[in-house]
Amino acid sequence: MNMAAKKLKIGIVGGTGYTGVELLRLLAVHPNTELTVITSRGEAGLPVADMFPSLRGYVDLAFTDPAQSDLGACDVVFFATPNGIAMQQTRDLLAKGVRVIDLAADFRIQDIAVWEKWYGMPHACADLVAQAVYGLPELNREKIRTAQLVANPGCYPTAVQLGFMPLLEAGVVDESHLIADAKSGVSGAGRKAEVHTLFSEAGDNFKAYGVAGHRHLPEISQGLTNMAGKKIGLTFVPHLTPLIRGIHATLYAKLTKTVDLQQLFESRYAEERFVDVLPKGAHPETRSVRGSNLCRIAVHQPQGGDTVVVLSVIDNLVKGAAGQAVQNMNIMFGFAENTGLEVVPLLP
Amino acid sequence: MNMAAKKLKIGIVGGTGYTGVELLRLLAVHPNTELTVITSRGEAGLPVADMFPSLRGYVDLAFTDPAQSDLGACDVVFFATPNGIAMQQTRDLLAKGVRVIDLAADFRIQDIAVWEKWYGMPHACADLVAQAVYGLPELNREKIRTAQLVANPGCYPTAVQLGFMPLLEAGVVDESHLIADAKSGVSGAGRKAEVHTLFSEAGDNFKAYGVAGHRHLPEISQGLTNMAGKKIGLTFVPHLTPLIRGIHATLYAKLTKTVDLQQLFESRYAEERFVDVLPKGAHPETRSVRGSNLCRIAVHQPQGGDTVVVLSVIDNLVKGAAGQAVQNMNIMFGFAENTGLEVVPLLP
Amino acid sequence: MNMAAKKLKIGIVGGTGYTGVELLRLLAVHPNTELTVITSRGEAGLPVADMFPSLRGYVDLAFTDPAQSDLGACDVVFFATPNGIAMQQTRDLLAKGVRVIDLAADFRIQDIAVWEKWYGMPHACADLVAQAVYGLPELNREKIRTAQLVANPGCYPTAVQLGFMPLLEAGVVDESHLIADAKSGVSGAGRKAEVHTLFSEAGDNFKAYGVAGHRHLPEISQGLTNMAGKKIGLTFVPHLTPLIRGIHATLYAKLTKTVDLQQLFESRYAEERFVDVLPKGAHPETRSVRGSNLCRIAVHQPQGGDTVVVLSVIDNLVKGAAGQAVQNMNIMFGFAENTGLEVVPLLP
Amino acid sequence: MNMAAKKLKIGIVGGTGYTGVELLRLLAVHPNTELTVITSRGEAGLPVADMFPSLRGYVDLAFTDPAQSDLGACDVVFFATPNGIAMQQTRDLLAKGVRVIDLAADFRIQDIAVWEKWYGMPHACADLVAQAVYGLPELNREKIRTAQLVANPGCYPTAVQLGFMPLLEAGVVDESHLIADAKSGVSGAGRKAEVHTLFSEAGDNFKAYGVAGHRHLPEISQGLTNMAGKKIGLTFVPHLTPLIRGIHATLYAKLTKTVDLQQLFESRYAEERFVDVLPKGAHPETRSVRGSNLCRIAVHQPQGGDTVVVLSVIDNLVKGAAGQAVQNMNIMFGFAENTGLEVVPLLP
Repeated sequence: MNMAAKKLKIGIVGGTGYTGVELLRLLAVHPNTELTVITSRGEAGLPVADMFPSLRGYVDLAFTDPAQSDLGACDVVFFATPNGIAMQQTRDLLAKGVRVIDLAADFRIQDIAVWEKWYGMPHACADLVAQAVYGLPELNREKIRTAQLVANPGCYPTAVQLGFMPLLEAGVVDESHLIADAKSGVSGAGRKAEVHTLFSEAGDNFKAYGVAGHRHLPEISQGLTNMAGKKIGLTFVPHLTPLIRGIHATLYAKLTKTVDLQQLFESRYAEERFVDVLPKGAHPETRSVRGSNLCRIAVHQPQGGDTVVVLSVIDNLVKGAAGQAVQNMNIMFGFAENTGLEVVPLLP
Repeated sequence: MNMAAKKLKIGIVGGTGYTGVELLRLLAVHPNTELTVITSRGEAGLPVADMFPSLRGYVDLAFTDPAQSDLGACDVVFFATPNGIAMQQTRDLLAKGVRVIDLAADFRIQDIAVWEKWYGMPHACADLVAQAVYGLPELNREKIRTAQLVANPGCYPTAVQLGFMPLLEAGVVDESHLIADAKSGVSGAGRKAEVHTLFSEAGDNFKAYGVAGHRHLPEISQGLTNMAGKKIGLTFVPHLTPLIRGIHATLYAKLTKTVDLQQLFESRYAEERFVDVLPKGAHPETRSVRGSNLCRIAVHQPQGGDTVVVLSVIDNLVKGAAGQAVQNMNIMFGFAENTGLEVVPLLP
Repeated sequence: MNMAAKKLKIGIVGGTGYTGVELLRLLAVHPNTELTVITSRGEAGLPVADMFPSLRGYVDLAFTDPAQSDLGACDVVFFATPNGIAMQQTRDLLAKGVRVIDLAADFRIQDIAVWEKWYGMPHACADLVAQAVYGLPELNREKIRTAQLVANPGCYPTAVQLGFMPLLEAGVVDESHLIADAKSGVSGAGRKAEVHTLFSEAGDNFKAYGVAGHRHLPEISQGLTNMAGKKIGLTFVPHLTPLIRGIHATLYAKLTKTVDLQQLFESRYAEERFVDVLPKGAHPETRSVRGSNLCRIAVHQPQGGDTVVVLSVIDNLVKGAAGQAVQNMNIMFGFAENTGLEVVPLLP
Repeated sequence: MNMAAKKLKIGIVGGTGYTGVELLRLLAVHPNTELTVITSRGEAGLPVADMFPSLRGYVDLAFTDPAQSDLGACDVVFFATPNGIAMQQTRDLLAKGVRVIDLAADFRIQDIAVWEKWYGMPHACADLVAQAVYGLPELNREKIRTAQLVANPGCYPTAVQLGFMPLLEAGVVDESHLIADAKSGVSGAGRKAEVHTLFSEAGDNFKAYGVAGHRHLPEISQGLTNMAGKKIGLTFVPHLTPLIRGIHATLYAKLTKTVDLQQLFESRYAEERFVDVLPKGAHPETRSVRGSNLCRIAVHQPQGGDTVVVLSVIDNLVKGAAGQAVQNMNIMFGFAENTGLEVVPLLP
C-alpha cells in the first residue's frame, strides 16, 4: 500500500443514502483518500456518525449544505444522489479540474432521447454525456484511466453485463433473444421512506416488478449491443427478494456454436481481480460476495442442450455501486485497482 | 357446507414434516373430516401439539407407530412422507378400499425408468403408477373424482404448469424452448435438519441450485408435453430465496402467434376457484397467497415483443402440497371443492 | 355457527393500515357480519382488493371518502385510524345508536391529563372516556357486553397485562419493581412510510427504543394498578425485532409469597378461550400464535429463586389489535366469543 | 502496521463452524499472521474455500486431519471446537511452547464442579483451568499479555459483563437482583444441522429458551461476582431472534446510590478501543457492530426512577468469539490491540 502518497481529497454529494454510506465505509479506511466534504441538503450540520452509528470512530465529518461546500477543492467528487442532480453540477466541477464519478444514471446512456424517455426529464448537458466514460472496468479500463467524468454503472447492469459479456464478445449465442431474470435485495431501492420497501411489505415476500419496462433495460441493452457489435433483443425481469444486499442474475441464451463455456469464461476474466469464475457446476450465492467488490459467476449448459445459463452475483451496494466507484477512482488515479477493496465477504 | 354428512376418517402417514403439519392445519377445521390416525416412526406417543404448539387446542391426537396404526379403517390416507414410502404401503390400503393421496413423488411420473433415474431407487409398484391420477384439478378434475390413488403434484410443478397451461393448450408458443425460472421459500426443502437450510445459511442469501437437473424437471416436462400434445424443451432453474413460504415462477416463451394473452388466461381459468388471473400489468406477490390455496397469475408481453412472460405464485405448502391434497380429497368425496380451503391469505 | 341471524352492518374507518386489513381478513369470513363501509381519505374510490391483493375474492368493497360515507347506518364502527381521529367522530356515531370500537388510543386512558401528555394533543371528549370500556375481555368481559364504546387495548399492553394479571390479582409479587422487556415485530409500527421500518433498516437488526418513555407505558401502568389495587412501579423497555408479526413479552417480578405459579396461572385462565397457559417449563414462540387471536403464556421460577419470569406471546395484529376487536364485537353483540376467530396459527 | 515483523504461524482446530470461518475472515488479512494449519476431522482434504466460497482468493489452505496436523509448529493455536475438545489437546501444545486460545468453554469456569455440572462431562485438566486467563481484555488485559492459555469468553457473557461492569465495580446497584434479558442472532447456535435453527423454524419467529438454566449463566455469574467482590444474584433469560449476527443484552438493576451513570460508563471505557459508550438517550442497534469487534453500550434511567437499564450490543461472532480471540492474540504477542480488527461495520 502506498501510505506515503499525498491523499486524495474526496467529496461526496448526497451522503445520506445507501450508496453514500457505503462509499464512506470503504473510503474511511482507504489508505490514499481523505474524506473532505459530504453534503446533504436536509441534514446539514448533523455529524455523519449520528445518522450512521456504524461509522462512529471512523468518520468525524458532519454533513454540510451543498451551497456552502467547497467541492471545487476536492480531487474527485462522487455523486451519490438521485438521478438528475449530477448533471446540474458536473460542468462546474470539471471546469475546476475536479474529476467526477456519478453513481446515478445521468451519464450512462449515450442516446439522449432514450435517456429522457426513461428518466422523464430533459437532460441538462448532452455534451458531457458524450465525453463520459461508462465505468465498467472489465470493459473500459483504459478509457477510465484518463476519464474526467465516469458514469458508474447501475447494479443490475453490472451483474447482467458481466454475465453476458464473454458470450456476446465471442459471438456464440443468439443475441436476439436474451433473457435476464434478475433478483435484487431491498437495499437496491435505496433509503427513501416508501411503503413497498417496508420490512412488513418486502419481508417474507417475493415479487417481480417493472416487467413492462425498467430503467436499467436501456442501459443494459446499450452495453450488450456494444459487446455484440449489433442490435440485441433483451427481456429483462427484475424481482425484489427479501435480502438486504445482493443481486443474483440468472441469464439465458440460445447457443449458436459449440464452445467450451467454462474455458470461455475463465479466459475472459483471467486477469480480473473482481470477477471470479467458479468451477464447473457451481452455484454462486449472494452472501459469498456480501460487503465485497467481487462478482462471482458460474456458467451451465443444462442437460447438454442448446440453452446456456449464467449465474452472476454481486453485492449491489459494492460492485453494483460504491465499490465499483472506488475501483474506478483507483484506476483514474493510478492506485492499485484493489486498494481499499480487499474486504473479505461477511459470511454468515 | 355439508355439516350433517358423516365425517371422513382421515389418516396421515408421516405427520412430522411441513406438509404434515399443513394438512393438520387445514383438516383440523375442515367440516367434513375427522383426524383419526397420524403416524410417525420416530415420534410415536408424542402428542402432535407438543411438536407443533400452533395446533394446541385444535389437534388432540398423538403420533402413533405405523406398525400399530389401523390405517385400513380410514376413508382416505395422505402420505406426507419422503419419496419411496407410499409405494410400499399403497397396495394394501387400496385393497382395503382406502383411497390414497400421496404428497410425495412416488406416483407422479408415468415412465418408470425416468422415475427410477431421477429418484435413485427401483419402483415398488409400476402397475399402480399406471392407475394413479395426477392430482392437478385444473387439468384432471374428472379423473380425480373417481380416483382411488392420487399423485399430488410437486410444488414447482404446480406453479409452472398452471402458468404454461393456457399457452401450450392454445399452441401459441414455441414449445421447444420454454424457460422456467422458479424461486422457492425455504420450507420447500422440508423440516429435515440440514446445514444449507439453516437460518444462518439461507437467511439474507439467494442462490440457484440444481441447474444441472432437479427432480421436478421430468414431472414438469411430462405435464407440459401432455398439454402441448408433443415433446417440449424446458430449461428449469430453481432458486432458494429467504422466505418461509411461497413459490414465484417466472416463465418465458417465444410467441408464435398473435393472441390476446390476457383474454386467453382469463378464459382458461374463468371457472377455477383457485386460479386467480390478475389484471393486465399486475405483479403477483407470494404473500398475496400466504396460507391460501390460491395460485395467482399475471401475463406480460414486455415492450410488445415476441416473448411472453408469465408470473405465477403459490404457497408451496398449500396449493403446492397440502391444500391441493385437500382440494383433491374434496373432489374425490364429492364435497364442494373449496370446503375448508377458504382461508384468507395472511398479509402482512 | 349462527348463519341465520341478521348480519351486523360493519363500518371501518381507516382501512388502509395493518389493523384495517387485518379486520378485513377476519370479518370477510365472519358468519355474522357484513362489511358495509370502509373509509379512507386518501384512497377513496380504490377497490380494497387493489391495495391488498390478499383480499381478492373476499372483499368487493371500494374505499369511500369519510365525508360521503354513511357510517351512521352501521351497527358497529371500528376505528383503525391514527390516534386522535376516533375522538372527533365517536359522539355523533353513539348518538345515532352505533356502537364503536376504537383500535387507537383515544379512549384507553382514564386520566385525561396523562393522555394529553403522552399523546401530545388536547382530548376532544373527556366525558366519553369516562364511559368507554377498556376492551380486555379477560378483565372486563361483563362491562364489554353492554358497552357502547370500547377502547381496544394496545398490543404491548395486551401481552404485558395478561402476563402480569394472575400475579397482581393474587398479590404475590413486589408490585413496585415490575419489569416488562417486550419485543415486537415490525408491523406494530404500522404501514406508514418511514425510514426506520424499511426492510434494509429493520431487517437483520435488533434494537431497543423508547426506553425513556413509550406511550404504552401509562396504559400498562393504569391496567396493572387496577389489578394490584395499588400504585405499581414499572420499567417498560420495548424492542424492535426482525419479524413481521408477533410480540414476546418477558416479564420479571420479585416474589413476596410462596405460591404454585403454574396452578395460579392455569386457574386464572381456565375458562379463557384465547389465553393458553403452556405446561411447566415451556417457552412459547411468537409463530405459535401467528394469525391467531391466542395469547400463549408460560411461567418460570429460574433456579427456584425469588424472581418470577413470565413469557407471554401474541400476534400484535390479532390479539393485539384486530382479533381482540372482533372478540369484543362478539361479546357486545352476543355471539359466541370465538366466532370467526378459530383461525389455526400459520406454522411454519 | 507492522508488516516487516515475522509472521505468527497460526493453527485453527475445528475450522468448519461459524467461529472458525470468522477467524479465517479476520486472520486472512491480518498483517502479522500466516495461516498454517486448519484441521477438521470430517473434511480433511477439502479446500477451505470450497466450503466457504466467501474465502475464495483469501485462503488457499485445505482442511487437514487433526492426527496428521503439526499444530506443535504453530506459534498460537485457536480451538474453534465443541466444548470438551480443547481440554484434551492443550497440555501437549503448551508443553511444546504453543500458546492456546480456546473459543469454547473448557477453561472459562474456575470451579471445576460447577463446570462439570453444566457441561455434563468430567474435566480433563483441572490444573490448566487454574492457570488459564479469562480473555476479556477490558478486565484482564495485563494477565492476557503473558498468558499461555486464554479462555475466550462466551458471546452472552461478553455482552452482559461489559454492560454490568461499571455498575458493579462502582458498587452502585443491588447486586443480589440483577436481570439480563439477552437476545441472540441464530448464528450463536452454530453451524450444526438442527431443526430448531432451520430458516423455516427460526425465521419470522421469536422465543426465549433455557430459562430454567443456560450454560452461560455460571460463566456470567463468576465474572459478575469478581467485579462486585461478593456473591451476586442473576436472572438470565436468553432469546433467539431472527437475525444472523448480533447480541442485544438489556440489563436491569436497582440503583442503591445516586450516580452520574453516563459519566460512570464513559470513564470506565475511556481508554477502550472496542467499547463505545453512546451518548445519553441512545439505543444501540446490533447492525451498528455487524462484522466488527466493537461493543456499543448505552445507559438509561427511565423516568428518573431507581432502575438502571443498560443496552449492550456486540456481533456474537466477532467481539463475542473470533474477534475477541484475535484481540487476545494481539495482546499476547505485543501487536497493537486493534491490528486486523479495524473492519468498519456493514450497514445496511
